[in-house]
Amino acid sequence: MAELVAEGASQLAGAEVRLRDIANADHTDLEWCDGLALGSPTNYGSVSWQMKQWWDQQPIENWGKRDGKIGCVFSSAGAWGGGQEWTCMTLLSILMNYGFLVFGLTDYTGVKFSAHYGAIAAGSPSEDREQAACRRLGLRLSEWVASLIDGKKEHHPLNQSYDRFQDLGK
Amino acid sequence: MAELVAEGASQLAGAEVRLRDIANADHTDLEWCDGLALGSPTNYGSVSWQMKQWWDQQPIENWGKRDGKIGCVFSSAGAWGGGQEWTCMTLLSILMNYGFLVFGLTDYTGVKFSAHYGAIAAGSPSEDREQAACRRLGLRLSEWVASLIDGKKEHHPLNQSYDRFQDLGK
Amino acid sequence: MAELVAEGASQLAGAEVRLRDIANADHTDLEWCDGLALGSPTNYGSVSWQMKQWWDQQPIENWGKRDGKIGCVFSSAGAWGGGQEWTCMTLLSILMNYGFLVFGLTDYTGVKFSAHYGAIAAGSPSEDREQAACRRLGLRLSEWVASLIDGKKEHHPLNQSYDRFQDLGK
Amino acid sequence: MAELVAEGASQLAGAEVRLRDIANADHTDLEWCDGLALGSPTNYGSVSWQMKQWWDQQPIENWGKRDGKIGCVFSSAGAWGGGQEWTCMTLLSILMNYGFLVFGLTDYTGVKFSAHYGAIAAGSPSEDREQAACRRLGLRLSEWVASLIDGKKEHHPLNQSYDRFQDLGK
Repeated sequence: MAELVAEGASQLAGAEVRLRDIANADHTDLEWCDGLALGSPTNYGSVSWQMKQWWDQQPIENWGKRDGKIGCVFSSAGAWGGGQEWTCMTLLSILMNYGFLVFGLTDYTGVKFSAHYGAIAAGSPSEDREQAACRRLGLRLSEWVASLIDGKKEHHPLNQSYDRFQDLGK
Repeated sequence: MAELVAEGASQLAGAEVRLRDIANADHTDLEWCDGLALGSPTNYGSVSWQMKQWWDQQPIENWGKRDGKIGCVFSSAGAWGGGQEWTCMTLLSILMNYGFLVFGLTDYTGVKFSAHYGAIAAGSPSEDREQAACRRLGLRLSEWVASLIDGKKEHHPLNQSYDRFQDLGK
Repeated sequence: MAELVAEGASQLAGAEVRLRDIANADHTDLEWCDGLALGSPTNYGSVSWQMKQWWDQQPIENWGKRDGKIGCVFSSAGAWGGGQEWTCMTLLSILMNYGFLVFGLTDYTGVKFSAHYGAIAAGSPSEDREQAACRRLGLRLSEWVASLIDGKKEHHPLNQSYDRFQDLGK
Repeated sequence: MAELVAEGASQLAGAEVRLRDIANADHTDLEWCDGLALGSPTNYGSVSWQMKQWWDQQPIENWGKRDGKIGCVFSSAGAWGGGQEWTCMTLLSILMNYGFLVFGLTDYTGVKFSAHYGAIAAGSPSEDREQAACRRLGLRLSEWVASLIDGKKEHHPLNQSYDRFQDLGK
């Protein structure tokens, strides 16, 4: 899913997007970025231990000094109903604790599909509406960073012309 | 979804099942029952105000005197990713607060489908795997009531012969 | 608690703060504001039915058209351990669903006291550290609105000189 | 906190209580037990990575074969408002996913103190009401195991004579 989210984030011209997994990410990645889309597989309705370890081992002296970045989350489980939205909650909890402002999507990206609290999937996202939700989440992150942090109000989601509510009500 | 859950609960011979909506349920329904499957539409990622009102207006003198019943939950939203699992959390919160022991399903009821924290759907459950999850949740409630409260160990889920993990891993 | 949060929000010169309860708030209050601190008593580990009703009855045509405001939450329960933080989750869920970006505090406002996911209390906040958390939450809301929405970077919390971590580690 | 919970669980005559930390617990501990009180420090509003690792590395072939045990949870954070109740949710999520029925306390153990969703503390529990909540949670676990799994209805909490609601309303 991370690739799709990154692809979506790159749709905004001027956005600098770096795709990292926890094996090659470190604390400097929490420094340079203005926004972060954080994802983890769903295991037992929460994040993987590796993802948790990454955060638990962050240099403690950085905590409380990164406030004001913008974050969103995504997760895949083995099944629909498998706890993806509970994992999203854990991921949001980590980001909020670190001082992030976090968001979900109001947008619909297909029939009966959204990412209100983060993008979710069962296995790899294979359907168009699932993949579109990942991309939209990434794009939205870039839009919030541009409009709120860089002051480019023209990138505010409410100023966009693309269809934010595809198939809503169908 | 409530009808499907009730149908599932009735699959256990001897189970007395009463289907209630909040318009015709009252505090006596929390008295006679040994188990409860509680469902609500997902609005803003939580229960409907009508469902919340029902609980908030329960006779306060009953609270703390109904402990030890068994509960599970279900919810439908307008979209996958629409907050069903967050609503399940609110529903579980209500039941736990009232003294219930609550559970989800380990079972799979079709390809990439489960109800680990409650049965969920987008709109009305239309696919077989979705409907089967509702029925299984109801059946499981009857099984837990029979084995834990009525002492009929033969109804313990681990003693059953039906396929609890249909299409797991597919 | 609402008065304390409003008092805190007013600490930032230039902030326009309106204190509303659900009896005198309506949809126009979601229009003019750039930020919102949303609070509810904790009942059964979630928001009051009246608060939920207020949101469930918002004009549906406004949904999806208010994205990008900034929100935070607070709640009081009858007891510590009574579900305040679960209620905060429901409140955050409502705000995120409506398109808000939400935040908690990294700050400590006294010995072993914070508001990482919203300001919480048991009964009315009576201790200094509890009241300070409410005020800080309100102030932070004004700071985020000023720095992120109004572009006044000088109001960013990381640029402030007051003690954000009072008694941390004690 | 674990010692206090274990002490409470031992208050029921006949209960066999084993206190384990993750360094010396293994999958056999999920086999012999009928109930489990699971605790973790709160880090970033969720369980420690070590606790998560323990579960993520459980033999997968055991999953779905331990259903019907009874569980409860506890957590301490650096601060009140630090996410203990969100951590309790993650702990409950793990247990529910593994097939446990989970519960909280309706009981009050002192002025404005309960453990509705698990026992919580800031640092080590030092006050009487905090310690009593831990013990009560352990006792309740033993009571549910005795009454629901061993069929000893005389141990049902509603049949007890001790004060379950100390200082409620004060």
